[in-house]
Amino acid sequence: MVYDDSRLLEEELESIGDAFPFSDAPIVTWVNVDGIHQVEVVEELGQHLGLHPLVLEDTLNPEQRPKMEDLSDYLFIVVRMLDWDDGRDKMITEQISIVIGDSYVVSLKEHPGGDVLEPIRVRIREAKGSIRRQGPDYLAYALLDGIVDRYFGVLERLGEKVEDLEEELVAHPTPDMLQDLHDLRRQMIFMRKAVWPLREVVGGLERGGSSLIKDSTHVYLRDVHDHTIQVMDAVETLRDMLSGMLDIYLSSISNRMNEVMKVLTVFASIFIPLTFVAGVYGMNFAYMPELAWRWAYPVLWLVMLGVGLSMLLYFRRKRWL
Amino acid sequence: MVYDDSRLLEEELESIGDAFPFSDAPIVTWVNVDGIHQVEVVEELGQHLGLHPLVLEDTLNPEQRPKMEDLSDYLFIVVRMLDWDDGRDKMITEQISIVIGDSYVVSLKEHPGGDVLEPIRVRIREAKGSIRRQGPDYLAYALLDGIVDRYFGVLERLGEKVEDLEEELVAHPTPDMLQDLHDLRRQMIFMRKAVWPLREVVGGLERGGSSLIKDSTHVYLRDVHDHTIQVMDAVETLRDMLSGMLDIYLSSISNRMNEVMKVLTVFASIFIPLTFVAGVYGMNFAYMPELAWRWAYPVLWLVMLGVGLSMLLYFRRKRWL
Amino acid sequence: MVYDDSRLLEEELESIGDAFPFSDAPIVTWVNVDGIHQVEVVEELGQHLGLHPLVLEDTLNPEQRPKMEDLSDYLFIVVRMLDWDDGRDKMITEQISIVIGDSYVVSLKEHPGGDVLEPIRVRIREAKGSIRRQGPDYLAYALLDGIVDRYFGVLERLGEKVEDLEEELVAHPTPDMLQDLHDLRRQMIFMRKAVWPLREVVGGLERGGSSLIKDSTHVYLRDVHDHTIQVMDAVETLRDMLSGMLDIYLSSISNRMNEVMKVLTVFASIFIPLTFVAGVYGMNFAYMPELAWRWAYPVLWLVMLGVGLSMLLYFRRKRWL
Amino acid sequence: MVYDDSRLLEEELESIGDAFPFSDAPIVTWVNVDGIHQVEVVEELGQHLGLHPLVLEDTLNPEQRPKMEDLSDYLFIVVRMLDWDDGRDKMITEQISIVIGDSYVVSLKEHPGGDVLEPIRVRIREAKGSIRRQGPDYLAYALLDGIVDRYFGVLERLGEKVEDLEEELVAHPTPDMLQDLHDLRRQMIFMRKAVWPLREVVGGLERGGSSLIKDSTHVYLRDVHDHTIQVMDAVETLRDMLSGMLDIYLSSISNRMNEVMKVLTVFASIFIPLTFVAGVYGMNFAYMPELAWRWAYPVLWLVMLGVGLSMLLYFRRKRWL
Amino acid sequence: MVYDDSRLLEEELESIGDAFPFSDAPIVTWVNVDGIHQVEVVEELGQHLGLHPLVLEDTLNPEQRPKMEDLSDYLFIVVRMLDWDDGRDKMITEQISIVIGDSYVVSLKEHPGGDVLEPIRVRIREAKGSIRRQGPDYLAYALLDGIVDRYFGVLERLGEKVEDLEEELVAHPTPDMLQDLHDLRRQMIFMRKAVWPLREVVGGLERGGSSLIKDSTHVYLRDVHDHTIQVMDAVETLRDMLSGMLDIYLSSISNRMNEVMKVLTVFASIFIPLTFVAGVYGMNFAYMPELAWRWAYPVLWLVMLGVGLSMLLYFRRKRWL
Repeated sequence: MVYDDSRLLEEELESIGDAFPFSDAPIVTWVNVDGIHQVEVVEELGQHLGLHPLVLEDTLNPEQRPKMEDLSDYLFIVVRMLDWDDGRDKMITEQISIVIGDSYVVSLKEHPGGDVLEPIRVRIREAKGSIRRQGPDYLAYALLDGIVDRYFGVLERLGEKVEDLEEELVAHPTPDMLQDLHDLRRQMIFMRKAVWPLREVVGGLERGGSSLIKDSTHVYLRDVHDHTIQVMDAVETLRDMLSGMLDIYLSSISNRMNEVMKVLTVFASIFIPLTFVAGVYGMNFAYMPELAWRWAYPVLWLVMLGVGLSMLLYFRRKRWL
Repeated sequence: MVYDDSRLLEEELESIGDAFPFSDAPIVTWVNVDGIHQVEVVEELGQHLGLHPLVLEDTLNPEQRPKMEDLSDYLFIVVRMLDWDDGRDKMITEQISIVIGDSYVVSLKEHPGGDVLEPIRVRIREAKGSIRRQGPDYLAYALLDGIVDRYFGVLERLGEKVEDLEEELVAHPTPDMLQDLHDLRRQMIFMRKAVWPLREVVGGLERGGSSLIKDSTHVYLRDVHDHTIQVMDAVETLRDMLSGMLDIYLSSISNRMNEVMKVLTVFASIFIPLTFVAGVYGMNFAYMPELAWRWAYPVLWLVMLGVGLSMLLYFRRKRWL
Repeated sequence: MVYDDSRLLEEELESIGDAFPFSDAPIVTWVNVDGIHQVEVVEELGQHLGLHPLVLEDTLNPEQRPKMEDLSDYLFIVVRMLDWDDGRDKMITEQISIVIGDSYVVSLKEHPGGDVLEPIRVRIREAKGSIRRQGPDYLAYALLDGIVDRYFGVLERLGEKVEDLEEELVAHPTPDMLQDLHDLRRQMIFMRKAVWPLREVVGGLERGGSSLIKDSTHVYLRDVHDHTIQVMDAVETLRDMLSGMLDIYLSSISNRMNEVMKVLTVFASIFIPLTFVAGVYGMNFAYMPELAWRWAYPVLWLVMLGVGLSMLLYFRRKRWL
Repeated sequence: MVYDDSRLLEEELESIGDAFPFSDAPIVTWVNVDGIHQVEVVEELGQHLGLHPLVLEDTLNPEQRPKMEDLSDYLFIVVRMLDWDDGRDKMITEQISIVIGDSYVVSLKEHPGGDVLEPIRVRIREAKGSIRRQGPDYLAYALLDGIVDRYFGVLERLGEKVEDLEEELVAHPTPDMLQDLHDLRRQMIFMRKAVWPLREVVGGLERGGSSLIKDSTHVYLRDVHDHTIQVMDAVETLRDMLSGMLDIYLSSISNRMNEVMKVLTVFASIFIPLTFVAGVYGMNFAYMPELAWRWAYPVLWLVMLGVGLSMLLYFRRKRWL
Repeated sequence: MVYDDSRLLEEELESIGDAFPFSDAPIVTWVNVDGIHQVEVVEELGQHLGLHPLVLEDTLNPEQRPKMEDLSDYLFIVVRMLDWDDGRDKMITEQISIVIGDSYVVSLKEHPGGDVLEPIRVRIREAKGSIRRQGPDYLAYALLDGIVDRYFGVLERLGEKVEDLEEELVAHPTPDMLQDLHDLRRQMIFMRKAVWPLREVVGGLERGGSSLIKDSTHVYLRDVHDHTIQVMDAVETLRDMLSGMLDIYLSSISNRMNEVMKVLTVFASIFIPLTFVAGVYGMNFAYMPELAWRWAYPVLWLVMLGVGLSMLLYFRRKRWL
């Protein structure tokens, strides 16, 4: 699914033209460019639409911070798409640039995997909902909404991972889990970096006062805005949980060290005095009257058992056993 | 108590109609829908009142963040009800959506357990207070006030739990308590997530300048606003206390490890040297003059007692005993 | 000293009336109600002055958050008085509600202990300072100023406690001190909860633009405002000190554990090898040539002393002794 | 150098009068009062200049928070001077109050040590720079500039102390250093308390719009403002470094405990099994065939050496040695 | 490459004059002064351009905080250049002051190493891009852009170092790494101190409304602004990662201590009881019937092996082995 922009223009134009043959409403053109490494395609498109050189540069740089710019003739949006790769069980990310003009929407991204865009294409093809009757601002909303909805899916997976880790951590803490915890924390940092500026982007679109955004679209944008805040809340909650889990992990290490120390202390404290007593009667002094007593040996065993048992009782009373 | 919206409409209309037969004041209609999974009921209601599709969608999604939206013809509020289930001794939560029109209030929630709404219904039935003489904005205030009042009850229970845990923690810290502490912390995070946006909701209603909110209601809304801030303060205080308790717990583990180590060290330091001495006189050298001395054995006992006692004194001076 | 409001009215009116017989300045009435549990007294007063029902409700609820409300005819202030009970050596707290009208001030609190109000009463009786020549806004300022001044006294006591605890902690840390530290921290949280909103209250009075506050009083209110900020600064400083003390405490525990471990290690490392050597020559093998040597025993003592001393030197070089 | 205010007035008036005999520019009077405990002097001055009673009260209270107040006829500034006492190697602090009128500047402080003011006096005496040609606002700027410049000197000393402590901490951490660290942290808290409000003071002077501050002075005040921000940045950086050093200290304690434990474990693990073997052949059973073997003793030595060496190798492989 | 300002003026003037011989556009003069210790050169330049004395002072002080000042005739900017010295593998920093007039740009710095400025000089010489056709504001943008771009390079290096350290830390944590971690943290603090105010500088240029900045340049400045925010985000992310690594390090120390303790406990707990048993049969009592039994010795060996093995099993079940 690698589109050439001109061919794509034709196809989409036709299908949209087919969709509104009976109306004199302004035709919406949606150009989706996959593979922004094809610099010349992007530049040709930029020249055709009169885009600012800095906008094209931002489009080609895949490490952009999400942002929205109002260049009066068009709005330029960069956002980050997140998705969960079930195969490799990890988060994948891609940048998408969206240009909203008065009669067109251009979306540019690197990889063709159009999971996020596909449902919107289907809605346009099947003329589901009101998307065919709306302008490019509604299409941009639909794109943003699709992207943010995908965030919830990613969050759900991360949330499951966090809860799995928490259960394991409470049951059998191992040093590896700290690494897992650290990895999850990094992914939270990453998500937060994607979502925080997105909120500003959507808020900027909503309040920005650009004439390209119709009044009727504002309520939809506010909905996306609410969703991004919900995502942020969830990210913060997961972060709080992770830092609480670190406390649990560290104190469980301390607890186990405590337990190890108690075992050592109990063994050593019981047997070291007894060994001393045995050592005393192993001495070779010529005059040790006890050695000759008839019942000395069994009596000593009783004494040693008594000492050992009273130590055990003492440790039990101290709750060490 | 599963209401069908039309039947409920009748009932309530009648009772309110009965309440104001002698007045020409605008009639207030309160529709309460329990069980938002009955999508068709909600949609029918939405069409009847001309609600925006996104509002209906938000209503049906039970994981909404508390928010207030002014759609000029009506105000849409989503808040989270919290309650304490004494039976299971845990916090329960439910989302309630409130639509305030010029002559109606619609409240939608999932479960019929109407603990929060019941007192208001009673007040309307018994015509207690000024609720019968006021418009839908006052009814909405009464709902919000009832919801926030319930928060205080939940907070009280959580506060009791925190104080119980603290007492136990100071007396006999066990690893399980850390888990309890973590659970309480999670509930605090949850409450905070519910209360923070609620403050904005109530503040928005108060300052929003919607014509649906009468001036006389502003002072009541400010009161609810003050209550939400009080709830937030209490949540923050409990969070501070919980993090202080974690410090107490961790240092109590360290203290007990310290104690265990001291016992081990005292035992080992006293008996290891003595065992060495006993070992020396257990050696089988041919020429060991002490072995033949008459008083060697009792003198050695005295020496060993002296060494042991002086070690004990040393440890006592170090405050280890 | 339980006042009935009507009788109090008479008394105060007379004394103030006596103070200004030669002037036609507006007479200031100060009603102080002790014992807000006497609901009917409060309600009668409320009706007489035309107070809003919510204001009366707030007055009767002793867990109110400090706040200021401008109800155009009067200003309603709730603040928290703090004092130090020298007998029980702890902080005591009480809520006071103040209503400022155009010619009256009403103050309502639960307990008669009028430590804070007494000096103001004295100033009125003795006509000290300019208080007799000023209106109700100045009286309200005098009340707030007296309350905030009392905060400094409480802070001083807490500061002394913090410094005492710090000295003890550095000298002889015990687990009990952690509990004291935790208690002090809780009192700091409590003070902060009282002072933060108070700043808003005083700031609101100063900037609020109510006609009940004369311009000449603004400079006094700014002074109280500065004082509340000073109190907050002091609270934050004490909090910072307390959290630094926790670090000291925890690391002192670690240090002492370290010391205990070193003693154990030094004893065990010196005597365990020597005990082994003694054990070797306690063996009963038939052919052990050393056993028969004439100087074996004294030489072994020398060897063992040498080993012991070199271990001691090694540990000293490692700075463990 | 204890000035009486009237005499000081004369002296300074004359010298400044001498400086501008040829100009009809407004004469600037600078009154410096050392020793604010001479209440009657301060009060006389206050009456002469028509200062508000609260201003005089603030002047006499040496624990004031830095602040700026615009009383239309004059500006009242309280700031905190910091200096480093090389003799006692500690930070010293003093409060200075500055009143800026249309033709005078009054500075009031407790101690005569005029280190901060001296350079300005010199500049006035020697007519260096533009200070003679400027009004009282420039003189106030010069005072503030001199005070803030002194902060840099104090910061430099504190910075040196922090770096010295850090080097020591990395080389040979001792428990005393934690106390030093805590002391430095307290001084940082103190400095921050002095600088934060100073920024507001200078910012308030710059933006305040008082007619007493000429436009040409604004650029100088902005310069002082930049300097205070620089001081704050430096304070924050030092605080960050100190909290990083605490981490280093705590983990160095853990590291050393680890090392101690390893030594103990290596000794105990090698000799305890060997002692057991020696104990076995010290038993007095009648039938122990090994005891009679010719080469049993040397073979056992070899076995014991082998066991000991293999343990050593094992520990070396575990990186414990 | 040490320029004298006058000579540089000539050269650059000529080359720029050559670049625009066909246009009557205003000529842009770029004066770059390396070596701000040549105070007289800077002062001569300042007098020539009519710069404020405070501006010259700031220029000469190499520890300035980044800032922007609008002095109506010219804009004065101080920023911090960062670069990575590959040779010494550390961050190097230098301050650059930029004065933007209506037809000139002056840049002043200490060291001649013009890595950051060189590409811009090349672009001017080779007339690449639009830089020749633009005014001094564009040249200033080009300088800021070059400086911020260099930040990304430094960040990349720091990021590599952080990731290298993290890998090592997970594999083989040593105490030295904590020092490395601390050093990296300090560099982060340093970078943050440089970037935070830079954001304000660029934002101030963009929104400042100075007539010296043309509208067409605003979009370029916004681009630089976005870049500085990206740098800040990256710095914060690295800081978060570093603090997470500290947790990993500290818990890895705890883990290893735990491991050491387990080895000690296992050895001691197995052999101490066995040594006691051996000690018992080493006693010299006259009446110890076991000593005479024929199979006592082999049976005891079996018993001791049984005890030892069951202890091993017990420890394995406790997951200590």
